[in-house]
Amino acid sequence: MTIKISIDCMGGDHGPSVTIPAAISFLKKQADAELVLVGVEDVLRAELKKHHADNNPRLTVKHASEVVAMDDPVEVALRRKKDSSMRVAIEAVKDGSAHACVSAGNTGALMAVSRYVLKTMAGVDRPAICSIMPNQKGGPTYILDLGANVDCEPDHLHQFAIMGSVLCSAIEGIPRPTIGLLNVGTEDIKGNEAVKATGVLLRADAERGKLNFFGNVEGNDIFKGTVDVVVCDGFVGNVMLKAIEGLSRFMKTTFKESVMSMLGALFARKALKKLNPERYNGAGLLGLKGLVFKSHGGANAYAFEWAIKRAYDAAHNNVQEHLSALIAELMPSSPITAPATAAAVAPTSAPVLDGQRQAL
Amino acid sequence: MTIKISIDCMGGDHGPSVTIPAAISFLKKQADAELVLVGVEDVLRAELKKHHADNNPRLTVKHASEVVAMDDPVEVALRRKKDSSMRVAIEAVKDGSAHACVSAGNTGALMAVSRYVLKTMAGVDRPAICSIMPNQKGGPTYILDLGANVDCEPDHLHQFAIMGSVLCSAIEGIPRPTIGLLNVGTEDIKGNEAVKATGVLLRADAERGKLNFFGNVEGNDIFKGTVDVVVCDGFVGNVMLKAIEGLSRFMKTTFKESVMSMLGALFARKALKKLNPERYNGAGLLGLKGLVFKSHGGANAYAFEWAIKRAYDAAHNNVQEHLSALIAELMPSSPITAPATAAAVAPTSAPVLDGQRQAL
Repeated sequence: MTIKISIDCMGGDHGPSVTIPAAISFLKKQADAELVLVGVEDVLRAELKKHHADNNPRLTVKHASEVVAMDDPVEVALRRKKDSSMRVAIEAVKDGSAHACVSAGNTGALMAVSRYVLKTMAGVDRPAICSIMPNQKGGPTYILDLGANVDCEPDHLHQFAIMGSVLCSAIEGIPRPTIGLLNVGTEDIKGNEAVKATGVLLRADAERGKLNFFGNVEGNDIFKGTVDVVVCDGFVGNVMLKAIEGLSRFMKTTFKESVMSMLGALFARKALKKLNPERYNGAGLLGLKGLVFKSHGGANAYAFEWAIKRAYDAAHNNVQEHLSALIAELMPSSPITAPATAAAVAPTSAPVLDGQRQAL
Repeated sequence: MTIKISIDCMGGDHGPSVTIPAAISFLKKQADAELVLVGVEDVLRAELKKHHADNNPRLTVKHASEVVAMDDPVEVALRRKKDSSMRVAIEAVKDGSAHACVSAGNTGALMAVSRYVLKTMAGVDRPAICSIMPNQKGGPTYILDLGANVDCEPDHLHQFAIMGSVLCSAIEGIPRPTIGLLNVGTEDIKGNEAVKATGVLLRADAERGKLNFFGNVEGNDIFKGTVDVVVCDGFVGNVMLKAIEGLSRFMKTTFKESVMSMLGALFARKALKKLNPERYNGAGLLGLKGLVFKSHGGANAYAFEWAIKRAYDAAHNNVQEHLSALIAELMPSSPITAPATAAAVAPTSAPVLDGQRQAL
């Protein structure tokens, strides 16, 4: 089956000069993929021509007259720019002309517009942002939430565990991914009140054989690869992610400070590449009625291509179907899934941000 | 004035084989310092002899018959091991025979025993753990709390800001250190409820010219050096600190994986050294009626010596006096400082951990 991905080509710090080359490069590697390039048509066609790709039958251009700026408030993206490349790309998922969407646009706007256009999946209270990090075992560690929800109740963290497990399972082909609850220690009694109560829920799931809950994990377990999926609230996840990015950037700067260090970095290139956060670009916005992937705003073409690849993998491996099925199976009696129709028609326009702040 | 530091020589993963060489090396560099080495006397004397330092007049051995193990529960350290090297070292601060104490023992135990023996400083609700990180500007960034308090109210975060500011000011000689509130974005409206309310308190301080509050900062600002002091709750701080340590360790391992990378690491040694977390060993337990510094449990002699140096600097620069004065000045009308005698005689034996969990 051909997988179609819609791309918000105007988003991010660099826009088409990054998104178009990434799209062209991705198609060369993925024969069963088609891309819908969304943005200001003239600009996109000019960029395509520059790369001799204006006649590629697997690339379609879809015009959108507006652009969500990186510093646009959520309200502007949501109410005033109804023909933005971001929104049109998400609408392509909604109307079935794409299986997934990728944008490097501002995260707050992307989450809000996605929630508004696609709505939240039945049984899910709050969508979450799930990204991956490299680990010492050579595999990726999935982490969520990375900034969509800064005040989380145990029920929310519980749902994040289910969503992260499904995404990891579908993309990595791991039947029952191990789940760790991010905490200040491994003992059950550790943690703040929300995390301790979440531990109780996850242990109950594990006892019934429903989720593969490993137990509490600590910050260093992310890079050790102790578990496949790490669950935390969006405040902790966001602050930690940015601290990690900050440390990576600091190290790069330090390497550039002396000729000897630069030489060192050259020799160590392979090692540094393994740690390269660009390879791990592409966070999933999970829990929506449609797949949306977020690229880092400052991504280069190499990194943006990875985000497209992640969206492709998720669509190709039917993440949405698996997620719906597993949410229904794992949370059948949850109060939040009970009024299914209410959840389906939940008002997402005005109170998109109720109890939720976008952060990345 | 001679500065006396008591050292729990038995603490940490390595005990005297690390703490004794570190102590000897420190004394060589610091002419006005004296050290009280606390631990099992025979073991300490044998180690001193090994390093030809058994006759150093600036080294005193103080016997303690017990050792708090790294995995001892807090209760064991507090109630059953009353003659532990950790406790005897802290008691040296209490009885005035030392100006500060250093231990690489388990953090939970160290905080609990310190609170029990020294009591909390008047005006301080909860002691906090303050460590430093290197930043791109070449200076250190002070961060607290790193794990003593996992559920924090705005009042607690407010006090952490004051304590961090005082420690940074005294040690770094910065008259009014800039303070950042760790958050998911820089705008005032960002953050979870506790952090937003803390922002209100800190902005009020800044408006009255009392604290140099910069505003919200993000995870990457720690390494950018945007502010001198970063304030967060102990859950966030602990998880982030361990994630950073985990990433550092991952990078070291990756470097060792190939000969070329090892060569790279060799050339880049100077750059890597700058980032070396060992240089930043030594976290302050602030808000107690006495100075206690915590070394990383796995510290080598080089790192442990840095922890001794930090304790020396804090004592030499009268951190306790500055802290008492500034707490009194900055929080004169705070309800927690009002019943000063009540705070001074607050029961710390049984409820040491009430609303507080040690984490590091």
